[in-house]
Formats: sequence, structure tokens, C-alpha cells
Amino acid sequence: MRRVVAAAKQHGVSVGAHPGFNDLWGFGRRPIEMKAEELEYLVAYQIGALQALATYSDVAVTHVKAHGALYTMAAVDRPYADALAQAVRTVDPRLIFVAPPGSKMERAARERGLKVAREGFCDRTYEPDGSLTPRRIPGAVLTDPEAAAAQALGMIERGEVVARDGSRVAIRVDTLCVHGDEPTAVTLAGEVRRLLEEAGVAIVPLTELALD
Amino acid sequence: MRRVVAAAKQHGVSVGAHPGFNDLWGFGRRPIEMKAEELEYLVAYQIGALQALATYSDVAVTHVKAHGALYTMAAVDRPYADALAQAVRTVDPRLIFVAPPGSKMERAARERGLKVAREGFCDRTYEPDGSLTPRRIPGAVLTDPEAAAAQALGMIERGEVVARDGSRVAIRVDTLCVHGDEPTAVTLAGEVRRLLEEAGVAIVPLTELALD
Amino acid sequence: MRRVVAAAKQHGVSVGAHPGFNDLWGFGRRPIEMKAEELEYLVAYQIGALQALATYSDVAVTHVKAHGALYTMAAVDRPYADALAQAVRTVDPRLIFVAPPGSKMERAARERGLKVAREGFCDRTYEPDGSLTPRRIPGAVLTDPEAAAAQALGMIERGEVVARDGSRVAIRVDTLCVHGDEPTAVTLAGEVRRLLEEAGVAIVPLTELALD
Amino acid sequence: MRRVVAAAKQHGVSVGAHPGFNDLWGFGRRPIEMKAEELEYLVAYQIGALQALATYSDVAVTHVKAHGALYTMAAVDRPYADALAQAVRTVDPRLIFVAPPGSKMERAARERGLKVAREGFCDRTYEPDGSLTPRRIPGAVLTDPEAAAAQALGMIERGEVVARDGSRVAIRVDTLCVHGDEPTAVTLAGEVRRLLEEAGVAIVPLTELALD
Repeated sequence: MRRVVAAAKQHGVSVGAHPGFNDLWGFGRRPIEMKAEELEYLVAYQIGALQALATYSDVAVTHVKAHGALYTMAAVDRPYADALAQAVRTVDPRLIFVAPPGSKMERAARERGLKVAREGFCDRTYEPDGSLTPRRIPGAVLTDPEAAAAQALGMIERGEVVARDGSRVAIRVDTLCVHGDEPTAVTLAGEVRRLLEEAGVAIVPLTELALD
Repeated sequence: MRRVVAAAKQHGVSVGAHPGFNDLWGFGRRPIEMKAEELEYLVAYQIGALQALATYSDVAVTHVKAHGALYTMAAVDRPYADALAQAVRTVDPRLIFVAPPGSKMERAARERGLKVAREGFCDRTYEPDGSLTPRRIPGAVLTDPEAAAAQALGMIERGEVVARDGSRVAIRVDTLCVHGDEPTAVTLAGEVRRLLEEAGVAIVPLTELALD
Repeated sequence: MRRVVAAAKQHGVSVGAHPGFNDLWGFGRRPIEMKAEELEYLVAYQIGALQALATYSDVAVTHVKAHGALYTMAAVDRPYADALAQAVRTVDPRLIFVAPPGSKMERAARERGLKVAREGFCDRTYEPDGSLTPRRIPGAVLTDPEAAAAQALGMIERGEVVARDGSRVAIRVDTLCVHGDEPTAVTLAGEVRRLLEEAGVAIVPLTELALD
Repeated sequence: MRRVVAAAKQHGVSVGAHPGFNDLWGFGRRPIEMKAEELEYLVAYQIGALQALATYSDVAVTHVKAHGALYTMAAVDRPYADALAQAVRTVDPRLIFVAPPGSKMERAARERGLKVAREGFCDRTYEPDGSLTPRRIPGAVLTDPEAAAAQALGMIERGEVVARDGSRVAIRVDTLCVHGDEPTAVTLAGEVRRLLEEAGVAIVPLTELALD
């Protein structure tokens, strides 16, 4: 059997689980209402599956970030946030929990003593309340590398983001997201990284951050 | 969140993964030809998922037994047997590997230093070559508790089973299978247990067996 | 190849499609938010699939009723109601559209000139606004055959149902639903039928109703 | 609701169903052994689903061609060939049945009075027995447009194909296949078309062929 090359260490990255709804057709971007208990088991199942596959490389799973509609829903829904945090707490309490700053998810994770990495988005615009602009609204996805880099730098350096209506929203982030399924993802991620490094920001794996 | 009751210990049982093909409609009983490497990852995925869910109870996953058509195919197909054994070896080499005695699966597992529990079937008839009678042949499933108990006792006490054609086949087993989806399963399992205990056979969790 | 026995005609029933969300685990009872256009195609797909399978018997598909969460959502959500009605209108405009009386579904279907059969539920309690009591509320499912029969008779004879809070809600129905997955379904359906027939109500296939 | 543009007529093409196994992960290219009766219903289901979706455009489904492993298996397995042909016969006997010349599929379809379009492959090499070289063998997929066009022309003009070992195999075809999931597909199809038209071959929709 061929072995997966342990590329993670070489490239200074860490590996995380990205659990989402059982929704192949909708790519996990369709909101689904289910029992929080069933959701908790679904999340546990997916984390465990990735942990097993990660034994094939030399790196361990070190963080968890909900995917798509699950992320959006659990940001504001306490039972979903609890289900996510409790699944992480049960399966492996050392896992870093990635969540939007100030969200229900952050709170649910902190209450369980999990380490939290607060996340900002490079390639999505924000609403005045600090939530992401829904994808159905035109312009919600930033594809311009410079705009994305500027937004990222604002979050890191000034702790704020300019919302869609021009207002400034306070936001403290530990980690930044670029969506890998956008055709502009690689260029955009490169440009963001370049600009951040020029500004003196050190980019490290999640596991090397000093997180609470 | 409700917790799954840790019933396993109380009832003197052990918990195992039962990986099978991705085949809901066919209940994993349809033979599927896939790349051995993809199969290996599928098996690893399922073991990991169960390990995570098992964190919700107080017992660990301690053995692995392939399900349905995967079991039947891997018994005689070396690449499939290797995929199964290698997945177990990679994800958790302490897991006991359940396999038909003399099968390709047994060999693949022993070559990797895994502990093997050789399995006999209470509720399926055997062919002269020691394989199970395929389910499509009438009578392949034993539903009579006494016939099943007699077959089980023959394997344990005399190390043999009477095949469908009346011939005697040598078979050494460490563990016995009763299919849970037969309506006769509970009665049959009870009768087998009663007869075995009457004959002085001690029934213990897999983890308490002295396996090579 | 074995042929499906054309039992429908013999038993005085008609056959309908019961399209629902792509949700095996949740049995179609989890609300899912998707694009109305994708939903429309999903519904068309399921109707067509059943029409093809129905060629194996002597009866045609003659009506469509949404399943589970899709039914509940489309009752009050206009884009979902439109998607359902438009799928029926496109695939086969002769199909009878089953919908709760006064719902968005009824309106969407009537605007497209579809025949509508207004549906009442024997085995679910009602809220004062005429909607079904959600399943998560204890007592939402009626399992007592006499209570179900009394509720059915009230709808048929007096055009009203007694809601959970004791208030009377006007409701005009052409067809009655009994959920087949309740263990009490057969007894309950029999008792409802008996009581209705005693009261002089004739029970006929949907296709023999004079519907607008 | 947006309507699918009726592009089929404008572009001189016909639309066919392409039923395959229930195998998203394996893209229908994994051989699966199932009961022929279940396969027949699966095929009927898929044809019906496409017929319903086709009501959204102005063209009807006019042919059926099995996909992937189902095609390969049904070419040589009589119960599978019968299941396919019987599903077509039952759902819509006017559908043209696409099958490899001389295959079990062709025979099963002709015995049921179906019109058959014999198919040749532009982008796959052949074995001396007239079967396709399995994909796992290097070189089985032709990606060179000129080689593909030459093979196609040989089938059309001389009724033969040069097998992988250099031998000539007689083959009479009515229709040619180019696999749409190869990156070279569009170039290759264009080149094949160009060469065939240069050689005076008229390319028409399946429905305009004089088929038995």
C-alpha cells in the first residue's frame, strides 16, 4: 500500500477536521435542522474518521472547524454550538476549536475548557453585526486578492473589518480562512500571505499559536 | 447531551468495528470490486469513526470484523485481505482481527503481527471446502436453534463442522457469529449459549481470550 | 423477471408519488434549505422515477404529495410551494396535488391549474392556526384509533378539527392521511374507515373524487 | 423558475439516459454484483427520472446506454443484459438501446424487439476478442485525437478495429463513444468528427439512423 506523504510538517501547516452536514449534493452548504444529539454524533464520527486516516501520515489532527452551513448555523444557534463543542470535548479535548469571535460556538467551546482559535475570513464580506454576508447576496465572496489582503491586514493589525455598508466592526482573530473551492483561492492566499509578511506578521501553524 | 450507557462492561461483552462496503441499499451484502487502496482507506475511516463514537461509552473498540460481502471477498482475495489487515495495522495494531480460520484474511493479519480471532458461524451452513454456503442457496441460513447449537458445539469440542454434503471439515474457532438481523437471532443465540455452557464451555469477551 | 402484482386496482386505491428531501438518515423529516430551483428538479426526478416503476404494474401514478419536512415547509413557504407545484405542472399536469387546505401549496397548485386534494391528518394533532403540532411536542402523534377516528369524522362531517388547546379550527378536506410508519397505523386506519363508513362516508380512490 | 434551454434540437443531437450503479464515490466504474431484479428496477428508476427532467426541455429521451461497470458487465452477463433490456422494454419500448456489437446486451435487446444502436469507442483500445481493454491497463484510454479518429474511421469504413496486439477485429457500429470526463474529450471529438466528415461520413442524431 502506498503511504500518504507526510507533507504537513514539511510545509509548516497543521491538519484539522472540517465536519459538516451529510449533504453531498449541496456540498454541506444547505442549512439542515436536525436533533442536536444526532449532530453531535455526526461530528464525532467525522472527527474520528479523519483521525484514523491521519494515522497514514506523520501528523495528528490538531484542530476542528465546522464546514459550510453547519458553521454558519452553529455560530448563532446554541444547541448546535454545544453539539459541536461537546463532540470535540468528548472525542479529543486537546483539539483546537476554530470559531468566529464572539459566536455561540466560541462560548460553547470556552465553557468546556477547549482552546479556541478565533477565525476571520479573507474572501467573504462582513455585515455590520460581524456576521458573514450570505453567499446568495452578490459580492459576498471576495475574489480580488488585494481587497482580501487588505481585509485580512485590517483584522490582524487594527482588530477591525469594514462591513458591507462601510461601518467598522471590531474583530479579533487568530486564524484566517480562504475557501479552497474558489478558482481564485491560490492567488488570493498567496497575495494575503505576501502582504501580511510584508507587514511583519508571522504565519505559523495553529498548534504554535498561544491560544487560551 | 445524553450519554450512551456503558452497557458493554456490565454485560461482559467487547465492542468491535464492523466495516463494510459503502452500500446502504444492499446492506453491504453486494460484492463490489474497488481498488484495494481505496478499500483500505474506507476501512480505516470506519474504524476511526467508531473509535470516536466509542469515546461516548466507557469501553474501547477492541476488535475488527469485516461485514457482509467484504468479509466473504477478503476471505479469498489477497489484495482485499491485505487492505483490511493493513488498515487495522495502521489505525490501531492492538485491535483483534476476526477472520475465518485458514482464510487469506487470517494470513494477511498474522503476517502483520496482529492478534487473530478465528471465527465460526452458528447460523450458516458450510461447504466441503470450509467456506460458507452462499445466501442465495436455500437453507444457507440456519434458523433452528438446536441445529445451530449442535454446529457450534462441534466446532468448539471436536474442531469440525458437518458441511452441507455431509462431509466433515476441520475448523478451529475462537469466536462464534450469530447474525443479528435474523428474526431468530436472539432465541438462537440463547440456545447456543445454553448448550455450550452445559457442555462446560466458558464464554468470555474477545479481549479475555489468549490469542496469538 | 418477476412482475409487481397490480394490487392497486383490486384494492380500490390509487398510487401517488411522495417526494421528499434527499435525507435517508433523517427519513426526510429534517428541514433543509435549498435553492427552490434545485428542489423543483429533485421533485421532478422523484416523480419520474416512480412513474417508470409504476409501468411495472397496471396502475398509473395519479397524485403527488410531498413528504415529511418538505410538506411542512412548502405549506408555509411560497418558493418551496411554487417549486413543488411547478414540478408537477411540468412533468404531468394531470397529477392531483395533495396539500393542506389554505396552505401556500394549495395556492401554488391552483394558480397553475392543477387539481388539488385538500388533506387532513387522522393521526396528528392540530394547532389553533390549523397547522400540525410539531412532532417534537409530546402528544403530537395520535395513536389511539378512536381519537383519530373522531378527529377524522369531525373534519368530514363538520368541516372542523379540535386543536390542541381545545379551540375549533375550520378545515375542509378531500383526503385523509394515516402515517404508515407508526406501529398503530393499520389498526388506526381500520378503525377510522369503520367509523367513517358507519357514518355513511364513501371512501374512494383519489381519482374518483370530484376535485377542482 | 428558469427553464433549461432546449439546446438539443439546435445542435443536432439526441438525449439518452445513462443508467449506472448506485456508486457516487466510484463514479459507477466499480463492478457491483446485485440481484438482476433489483438492477432492473434501478435502471427503470433512472430512466424515469431523466424522462421527467427532460420535460423541462423540448426534447424527449430517445435512447439508453448503460454507464461504466454496468455497461462492461452487461456486455457479457446475460442476467444483467436481460435486466437492462427488460427495464427499457417496460418503461418505454421506443427507446433505442445502445450496446456493443455482438454483446449479450445486443442479444437481450433484439429478443425483446428493441431498436439497437451498436456502439464503437473512439477513445478506448480493443482486445483481440472485441472487448475494451480494461482501464487498469496502461494505454487503455486513447488521448491522441489522430489515433482516435483513425480507429473510428476504421470501424465506420472497413468495419474493423485494430486490437492492442495488432490483430484485426470485425466490428459494425452505428454510433461512436467519446468519454466526456477525459480532459482531451473535446479536442478528440472535434478531430474525429472532422476526419469522418472529410471521409464523407454523415453524422446525425441517433433518432435519424435507420436501425433494426
